[in-house]
Amino acid sequence: MKKLLFVLALALCATFSFAQQALFSGQQIKSPEINPDGTVTFRLAAPKAVLVKVTGDFLPKAKIQTPFGEMETEGSALMKEENGVWSYTTEKALEPELYSYKFNVDGIDLLDPANVYRTRDIVSFVNIFIITKEKGDCGDLYTVNNVPHGNVNRVWYDSPTLGTKRRMTIYTPPTYENGGNYPVLYLLHGAGGDEEAWPALGRQAQIIDNLIAQGKAKPMIVVMTNGNANCDAAPGEWHAGMYTPSFMGHQEGAQAKATTEEAYKDVMNYVEKHYRVMKGKKNTAICGLSMGGYHTYAISKLYPGKFDYIGLFSAAIQMGQSNHGNDINAQLSADATTSAQLKALFATNPKLYWIAIGKTDFLYEQNTTYRKFLDNNKYPYEYFETGEGHIWKNWRIYLSEFAQKIFK
Amino acid sequence: MKKLLFVLALALCATFSFAQQALFSGQQIKSPEINPDGTVTFRLAAPKAVLVKVTGDFLPKAKIQTPFGEMETEGSALMKEENGVWSYTTEKALEPELYSYKFNVDGIDLLDPANVYRTRDIVSFVNIFIITKEKGDCGDLYTVNNVPHGNVNRVWYDSPTLGTKRRMTIYTPPTYENGGNYPVLYLLHGAGGDEEAWPALGRQAQIIDNLIAQGKAKPMIVVMTNGNANCDAAPGEWHAGMYTPSFMGHQEGAQAKATTEEAYKDVMNYVEKHYRVMKGKKNTAICGLSMGGYHTYAISKLYPGKFDYIGLFSAAIQMGQSNHGNDINAQLSADATTSAQLKALFATNPKLYWIAIGKTDFLYEQNTTYRKFLDNNKYPYEYFETGEGHIWKNWRIYLSEFAQKIFK
Repeated sequence: MKKLLFVLALALCATFSFAQQALFSGQQIKSPEINPDGTVTFRLAAPKAVLVKVTGDFLPKAKIQTPFGEMETEGSALMKEENGVWSYTTEKALEPELYSYKFNVDGIDLLDPANVYRTRDIVSFVNIFIITKEKGDCGDLYTVNNVPHGNVNRVWYDSPTLGTKRRMTIYTPPTYENGGNYPVLYLLHGAGGDEEAWPALGRQAQIIDNLIAQGKAKPMIVVMTNGNANCDAAPGEWHAGMYTPSFMGHQEGAQAKATTEEAYKDVMNYVEKHYRVMKGKKNTAICGLSMGGYHTYAISKLYPGKFDYIGLFSAAIQMGQSNHGNDINAQLSADATTSAQLKALFATNPKLYWIAIGKTDFLYEQNTTYRKFLDNNKYPYEYFETGEGHIWKNWRIYLSEFAQKIFK
Repeated sequence: MKKLLFVLALALCATFSFAQQALFSGQQIKSPEINPDGTVTFRLAAPKAVLVKVTGDFLPKAKIQTPFGEMETEGSALMKEENGVWSYTTEKALEPELYSYKFNVDGIDLLDPANVYRTRDIVSFVNIFIITKEKGDCGDLYTVNNVPHGNVNRVWYDSPTLGTKRRMTIYTPPTYENGGNYPVLYLLHGAGGDEEAWPALGRQAQIIDNLIAQGKAKPMIVVMTNGNANCDAAPGEWHAGMYTPSFMGHQEGAQAKATTEEAYKDVMNYVEKHYRVMKGKKNTAICGLSMGGYHTYAISKLYPGKFDYIGLFSAAIQMGQSNHGNDINAQLSADATTSAQLKALFATNPKLYWIAIGKTDFLYEQNTTYRKFLDNNKYPYEYFETGEGHIWKNWRIYLSEFAQKIFK
C-alpha cells in the first residue's frame, strides 16, 4: 500500500490538481486554528504581499473602498512573519457560532487555501468554521455530530402552474426508511438564494438531525424549494447554462407564468404524492427568510387551513407597489383581497404564527408595522426578537427555535 | 416589486456578503467569456498586481516553483489594460470539453471571482466552464440540457462490516418515480475522492441524463459510494469535523475494521432493499477510476457472478505489497487466492470486462502487464485507449463510453 501511495502521490504532484497553496516551504499551513484558549488564528502564505487582511463579521471593523464609495466593513490586518506566512489571532475567545471569513491580499479578496470549507451566497464565497464550547450550544447544533443523519435528496418535480420541471431539496429524517408517516416543514430561502441555500448556509440537516437526536424536535420531512419562479433550479443545475446569479430572479428578462405562491400547490401535491407524509394542518408547517418570509406570508394566506405553523423570519412583508408608502397597516387594510385572505387564514386558528426579526434588520420597522396590523385585527402571533440584522446567523437561530415549536 | 428590490439591494450592499470582486468601477466583469470565434477570454480586476497568470491544462505550459522544486505547469500571462483589468484570450478556439482553470496573482492562486462555478479535488479548487460546438459532443454531454433529470440523493446506510453508518450518493433515473425496476451501476471514485467526486468532477448526472435522453444508455440507478473505509462520508459531512482532506484515507491514523471490497456487500444489500432494482448479474455493473479501478477489480473478483459489466478506468491494479516488483503478471500468478478468485470470476462469463487508460497515464505499464496476465489466462476483456493521462477528462469519457455498453 505504501508503494502505491508513493507512486500515486508523485503522479499527483505533477498534475494541475495539486494544491501548492496549502503547503509552503514544505510545511502544512494550519488555518484557521482554534487555540486552546478559544481564540482563533488565521494564516496565509504570501511572501510578496504588502497588506493582508482577514475579513469577517466577528472581527473589528475597517473602512474599504467599494464601487458604491467608502464603506465600513470587517477586516483585521495580519502580521508578516519571517517565513513569509502572515498571521492574525483574534483578541478574544470566540463565542459558539458558525463564522465566515476570507482574506484580502493587497486589495484582492482571497479564500483561505488551507480551509476547504466554503459556502456561496449569490456570487460571494466565504470560508467557514464552527466554534463549539459545550453540548447543545449553537455551534454544536450546526456541527455534524455522531448522531443519526437524514437523507438529503435533490428532486425534480413537475410544476404545471409554472409550466416547467423544477428542482427542490428534500430532507427525510433518519428514521424515514424504517417506515411510518412524518409531518412536513416547507422551508423557504431569501432573494438571491435557491434550493441550495438552507442546506449550505442554513445548516438545515445539521440543525434538524441534532434537534431530533436531542429529542427537541419531532422527526420531520423538510422541503426546501426554489423561490425564484423564473428559474428551474440553482445556478448551473438547470438548462440556463453557467450564468452569473444575481440578487433578484437570477435571470434578467425571464418572466415566470405565475408567482411562487400560486405555484406552491404543485410542490405540496408532489410531496404528498411521493413521500409518506402525515397530512392535515397540524402536520404541516411553513417558514422562510426575507423574500421567503414574504412567500411564507403569501402562501399561508393563499392556502388557509393548510398550515398550523407559520414562521416569518426577517420577512419582507411589503412586496407589491403601495399607495401607502411604508405604512403596511394602511396598505393591508386598504387591500380588500389581502384583508379577506388574512381574515380567512386566522379564522382557521393556526397554532403558531411566528414573527422573528433582529433589532438592526432593515426590515424591522416594516415588521413592527405589520405586527400593529395583526394587533389591530386581533390576529394572534408570537414574536421573537434577536440582536443584529439581516444575516444567516439569525436565520439559523430562527430555524432552531421554530423547529422546536412545531408538530407538538 | 421594484421598490423592494431597491431596498433589499441597498441593504445587501452594506453587508459582508456583497461580492465587490465581480464588480469593478461599477462594471460587471465577464469571465470567462466564450467568444463567437470559439476562443475564450479570461479577465481579472487587479490594479495593483505585477503579474497575473491564468493556469489550466488547456493553456501553454510555464515553469513554476513548488515545494518539490521547479515544475512545469500550465500558465498564460494576462495583459493589464488601462482600467486595471487584466485579460487573456486563448490563441485558438477551444475544442468541446469541460475545462478548469484558476488565476495566479503575484504568486498567489486565486479563483476567478466572476465565475461562481467551481469544483474541489481533494484540497484544490478550480473554476470550470464548458465548451460545446454541437449536439452530442462531449461538452454537450457534460451540460445540463433541457432533458428530464434524475434525482440525486445523499443517503446514509448501515455498514455492519465496517461498524459505521456511511454516506453515499444515489442517482435515480428521470422515470424512476413513475415506477418499474432499474438496473444498477456502482460507480467508484479514486484516491482523495469521496461520494461527491463523480457527481461534481465526473458530471455523472449530466452524462447519464443526456445519454438516457438520447436513447444511448438505458435508464439506470447509479450508486456512488465512499471508497475510504476509514471515513463515513466526504470531508465536513460526518462527525470527524472540518478536517483537511488528504490524498490517501483522509484521516491519518484511523484504521478501518475491513476493506472497501469486504464491506461492499453492505452497500449492495442496502441498495437492493431500498431501491426498486432489477437483480441478477445482467442488471448489475461496476466501474471505478484509479483507486476505484482497484476497488472494481477487487470487488468483482470477491463477488463472482454479481456483475456482468466491469469497468476498470485507469485502474491501480497493484495495491498490495509484492515480491515481484512491477510484474503484475508474476504477482497475480503467484498469488493463489487472487488467481482462484479471478478464475471464478471469469468462469461466470461476465459480458464485459472493460479496461480503459490514457497513453501517458503513470499506470499505463501496470495496466499493460495486467492485460498480459488476462491474455495468458484467456480471460476475455475489451480495451479502450485514449490520449493523455490520469485526469478527469479521461474518466468522464470512460463513463460516457461504458454507460452506453451496459444493460444491453
